[in-house]
Amino acid sequence: MSNTLKEVLASNKKYSENFTKGSLSLPPARKFAILTCMDARLDPAKFAGLNEGDAHVIRNAGGRASDDAIRSLVISHKLLGTQEWFVIHHTDCGMQLFTNEIMGNLLFETLDTSEFDGKNWRNPNAKGGSIEGKFINWLTFANLEQSVVDDVSRLRYHPLVPPYIPIYGFIYDVRTGKLIEVPKAMEIGKPR
Amino acid sequence: MSNTLKEVLASNKKYSENFTKGSLSLPPARKFAILTCMDARLDPAKFAGLNEGDAHVIRNAGGRASDDAIRSLVISHKLLGTQEWFVIHHTDCGMQLFTNEIMGNLLFETLDTSEFDGKNWRNPNAKGGSIEGKFINWLTFANLEQSVVDDVSRLRYHPLVPPYIPIYGFIYDVRTGKLIEVPKAMEIGKPR
Repeated sequence: MSNTLKEVLASNKKYSENFTKGSLSLPPARKFAILTCMDARLDPAKFAGLNEGDAHVIRNAGGRASDDAIRSLVISHKLLGTQEWFVIHHTDCGMQLFTNEIMGNLLFETLDTSEFDGKNWRNPNAKGGSIEGKFINWLTFANLEQSVVDDVSRLRYHPLVPPYIPIYGFIYDVRTGKLIEVPKAMEIGKPR
Repeated sequence: MSNTLKEVLASNKKYSENFTKGSLSLPPARKFAILTCMDARLDPAKFAGLNEGDAHVIRNAGGRASDDAIRSLVISHKLLGTQEWFVIHHTDCGMQLFTNEIMGNLLFETLDTSEFDGKNWRNPNAKGGSIEGKFINWLTFANLEQSVVDDVSRLRYHPLVPPYIPIYGFIYDVRTGKLIEVPKAMEIGKPR
């Protein structure tokens, strides 16, 4: 068993020994959802003041309003009653450090994908890596504020998103722990 | 300003006033990633013992190995160095309570999508809702253990996932706070 696995299970043992949250119900008590980045430095429960049971938290690379984030948010609202959504990107995000082209080439050229079995390439076109990465939109971005505006805008005008849900756009500053409003996103995200 | 927004900003003010994590670096210090559900009752930092900076956390409805979760995990490994991944679904998950058909019909039949402007339907086929929901795979599941096995398996055999990354499959019990191993998923998730 790896050290990581041992440590996670030891932490979980401690957490469950003092567990007092066993009777919470399924729908979020505070009726809102946060979409943010997977970045290790972000702890949405801490930076937004959430207790267990309060709010949905959706996280992916960049905190982007991907199709899958929309799947999650529509379920969050329609089946589980959230009425307000936050989109929170952050400073020093990895998604600003590369592009679709860089990622596609990197995965095509390097050795450690499952198309290599240790001896042979199962796919003769997978020279050094896999072509698959070139068929994925990695959802990188060049401008942080604009990425928040774009994502709030995509949600605001999505056919499955009700016009009365406020969508708030923020940037989390990893140096200060502060949430900074993105005014243009807040304007676009207002209920219509 | 809504009460929710006020409360979140007040909590963030407190958090940032005592903020000591401003010098953490971008790659996760403990080199692992967790894929889990957006459910409000789950606090992965607490149940798995994570401090800011330790690990990537990816969350969506169900904690499913969606295309977007794979996008995030591949970035997590290839660009930011995570070497072990956890897939953690949970008891009493909303994704077991409905099906693609139910969700598609619900969104087609009910009134609160943005295709209704308060007076008129912009799409004449959007009678009472939107057809869009029928074109989305909502990634519901009927069997909890099997969903973990399926998702670990999808990751294990994905062409962009290196064979040497261990993928662990667990169920989080919302009544007890405990992580429960899914043996079949652990077997499939082993490095090959």
